Formats: sequence, C-alpha cells, structure tokens
Amino acid sequence: MAEGGREVAARTVLQQCLYAKLQVKPPDQDSEAEWAEIHRGLVIYVCFFKGADNAVIPKMVSSLLNVKLSEPDSGKHVSVLDLPGDVLIVPQATLGGRVKGRGMQYHYNAGKEQGMELYSQLVAQCQHVLEDNPKWAEAGAVLRHGTYGNRQVLQLNTNGPYTHLVEF
Amino acid sequence: MAEGGREVAARTVLQQCLYAKLQVKPPDQDSEAEWAEIHRGLVIYVCFFKGADNAVIPKMVSSLLNVKLSEPDSGKHVSVLDLPGDVLIVPQATLGGRVKGRGMQYHYNAGKEQGMELYSQLVAQCQHVLEDNPKWAEAGAVLRHGTYGNRQVLQLNTNGPYTHLVEF
Repeated sequence: MAEGGREVAARTVLQQCLYAKLQVKPPDQDSEAEWAEIHRGLVIYVCFFKGADNAVIPKMVSSLLNVKLSEPDSGKHVSVLDLPGDVLIVPQATLGGRVKGRGMQYHYNAGKEQGMELYSQLVAQCQHVLEDNPKWAEAGAVLRHGTYGNRQVLQLNTNGPYTHLVEF
Repeated sequence: MAEGGREVAARTVLQQCLYAKLQVKPPDQDSEAEWAEIHRGLVIYVCFFKGADNAVIPKMVSSLLNVKLSEPDSGKHVSVLDLPGDVLIVPQATLGGRVKGRGMQYHYNAGKEQGMELYSQLVAQCQHVLEDNPKWAEAGAVLRHGTYGNRQVLQLNTNGPYTHLVEF
C-alpha cells in the first residue's frame, strides 16, 4: 500500500552510476555470457505488482526520466535526460517481497506474463521518449536493459549511488 | 506511511554481493581515500525518518541479520548470519526522498544528529549480534560500514543483487 492506502502498481529503486554491467544472457555450452554495459547514468530496478496495467507506464516513464536524480560535474541535480546519461533497466521481482517470519513472500507480485508485458512496455516507452529528445539522442547516450526472468548478474561502480525509492 | 497507515521509522534496501568497496574517508591533501571492503554477503542501505527512536533498532538488527536473503552455493536461501557472510551498512539519506514535481524532497528524514545517533546504534548492535554468533564469528566474516554524512562512493559486484525493500 502506498500513501493514503492506494494500491502500488510498481516499485522502483534508482541508483546513479559511473559504470554498470549486467548479464543479459548466461553462458552456455556454445557461447560465453552476454553483457549490457552503460556508463554514467541511471540504474532503474523495477518490480510490478498484481493489478498493475498499461496505464501506469507513461507516468513511470515521465517520472523516471525527468526527475532530477543525476549529478552533473558541477551544479544542481538534473534529470537523466538532461545529464544526458545512460539508462539501465533491471527487472527485479524481489523488490515486491514482504518479510514473513524469517522468509520473504512475493504474493503481491504481478504474474510472470503480466510482469513481462509491463516490463517490455516500460523499456519500449523509455526508449521512445529518450530517442525523441534531441539532446539525449545526439549525446550518444544509450538505454540498456536486463532479460526478464533471468538472474541479474550485475556490477556497479558509483560516485555515490544516491539511492531512491519511487513507487507508482 | 507503511502498511495500515503506521509511520515508518526506517527504510532499508538490501542487496547481496560477492564484493563491495565503500569509501569511508575521502582523499585530502595529506592522504589518499580510505575504503571499507567486504566479500560475499549483504549490503544494507539505511535511512531513518523523523520520529524514529532507539526502540526500532533491536527489531531492525534481528530482522536484517536473520531474514533469509542470502544464497549459499547450493540449496535454499539463508540469513547472512547462517551464510555466514560479510555485512556492509551504508547510510543513505536519499532513501527518505519523495518525488515532488521534478525534484525530490526529504522533509520526513530524521535530523542529522538523530540520524547519526540511530545509525551508530544500528552498527553497534549489528556488530554485537554478529560477534555473539559463534558460526559467524569463527568464519572470519566482517561487518563494515560507511561514514554517516559522507558521500558513499561505492563499487558493487553481484551474482544477482536480489534487491529487497524492508521498512520498520
């Protein structure tokens, strides 16, 4: 439950980074692991809850890309669009967990198909908004994202993670 | 506000790691930066809110060290005490932020002195409980922590951060 008793549709944790590397395909017999890399920018961990629908996506995209959570070399914080910085979206179903005794329960998480659909839409709409922004696009910044359902093997290098929780 | 409208006293974000390195003293004219390092274990980002008092600390310590959030080499998740694994506590006041327009507000955060006092107690009581546990102490595991009020320059290497939010 969010403030005022409203149901939460999605939970995000945000960290700024100087560099991040995320495994997007684990190694197998025939090939090595594949990785997605970003440089200076924003890491977005995301989890969707039961009852979330498409309507939440545009609001999430607008907020995540426009809230001033990134530190430039000097001066006040700016958005990742204005930095302009890279973006790494990491599916993280564990964020929906609640402590129950000594274990965690995930009863409120979106089902796998629904979660994957919402995650895909979030990535696609972020990509669209980022590429539509001339400053961001011309800076050569990139959006990368993890593979839904995979283990998110992650390395992170920060100058201060500046961790925030934002729920929708 | 947490579930049921109860005021939240503290917010933690938890990530498991294989290795983490945190700056505990920035470089100055006379000396290089100092770092705290941990190997396999748990990173605890923590923020206290206005109105939090000492009473919350024992509950936090018990929950953070005993909830099964760590993956052993094989089998089910275990607590960081049972892993046994290292612990890195990172003060992270930004976790108390709320989105307001395009900015973040931190009006609900504990004041600096109160936050520092609660943080110090959390570290001390975690240390006490960990050292009192023969399995943990004999394994040579360590507790490390950031310097309250400093920039938390952090590097993190995970086999899947397994990110959780736990509020108290």
